[in-house]
Amino acid sequence: MSDEQAHPGYLTRKDDYLKRLRRIEGQVKGISRMVDDEAYCIDILTQVSAATKALQAVALGLLDEHLNHCVVDAARAGGPEGEAKLQEASEAIARLVRS
Amino acid sequence: MSDEQAHPGYLTRKDDYLKRLRRIEGQVKGISRMVDDEAYCIDILTQVSAATKALQAVALGLLDEHLNHCVVDAARAGGPEGEAKLQEASEAIARLVRS
Amino acid sequence: MSDEQAHPGYLTRKDDYLKRLRRIEGQVKGISRMVDDEAYCIDILTQVSAATKALQAVALGLLDEHLNHCVVDAARAGGPEGEAKLQEASEAIARLVRS
Amino acid sequence: MSDEQAHPGYLTRKDDYLKRLRRIEGQVKGISRMVDDEAYCIDILTQVSAATKALQAVALGLLDEHLNHCVVDAARAGGPEGEAKLQEASEAIARLVRS
Repeated sequence: MSDEQAHPGYLTRKDDYLKRLRRIEGQVKGISRMVDDEAYCIDILTQVSAATKALQAVALGLLDEHLNHCVVDAARAGGPEGEAKLQEASEAIARLVRS
Repeated sequence: MSDEQAHPGYLTRKDDYLKRLRRIEGQVKGISRMVDDEAYCIDILTQVSAATKALQAVALGLLDEHLNHCVVDAARAGGPEGEAKLQEASEAIARLVRS
Repeated sequence: MSDEQAHPGYLTRKDDYLKRLRRIEGQVKGISRMVDDEAYCIDILTQVSAATKALQAVALGLLDEHLNHCVVDAARAGGPEGEAKLQEASEAIARLVRS
Repeated sequence: MSDEQAHPGYLTRKDDYLKRLRRIEGQVKGISRMVDDEAYCIDILTQVSAATKALQAVALGLLDEHLNHCVVDAARAGGPEGEAKLQEASEAIARLVRS
């Protein structure tokens, strides 16, 4: 309950992320089945693209929340710890852009 | 067994794909757990980037096999069906590049 | 002229690629001007995304032609040279997907 | 001079960005020349991947500065304007990840 007050936005969308991640897990399972059945390669690739996009969408949602919570807190706090948090966020963005 | 003779390369690497897809399934499950536990956002994003890269690697491997089997067969056969297969491969590549 | 007969498709779309590349060159010049004028960062990023997408579209177009010409020729020819060409195409696709 | 005091980090790396953008402009010109000369397709694709990566690196650098300046200022200021700036930054990141 105290947690809910500390991260209200994060908790609000948590169920949504869990639902989307379960769906992605199902997509990956489906891709395994297609590979096992030696389905037509292009159809498998279409499913892989869909799962990749769904994962990226989860990442962008989490990053958005992170910017609005942790980074804002860090920016207000300032100092070396605040700078370190911003540096971390920049690096996470770079990994996403490059992945 | 006749299948093995028809797609020798495909079958050879099938177990490898299935192993990698099972690992990706485990990664996605782990991301769900991290979200459920409200793990530190940057750590979740790092896992999402890793799963995305692993999925892309599977896609590139499948595409490589596809070029070496179906596309080569299509190119040799030629005609409208051959062209349609090449068109499909191009579109699958475009989806991967854009995802 | 004999070249035109050898790569008819390639030549047909060449002017289109050159036009698009000139436009991209102009976009990059515009980004330089925005940086020089210290334009609002988000506006610069929007232009960079647009130029990146335009470059990717050129790459996908070239790749499509390459599959339809060189790769088809390679597939028909077969042998170690044909395989080497297919390997090259796969690696070029992987670089595009990862960039 | 008063500007330099207002955006010290931004101005410090400006020359670096301009240099990198001039190099990218040269890369795009080189790609045009290769298309005009009908260079080997894979070689053109390699240059396009390099230019795309260089553009992304500029974008990530600009975004990093933006997070450290505008977003930090916005976070400290708070209110609807602060939130709007964070929203803008999130959308720019999403465009980069998807491009």
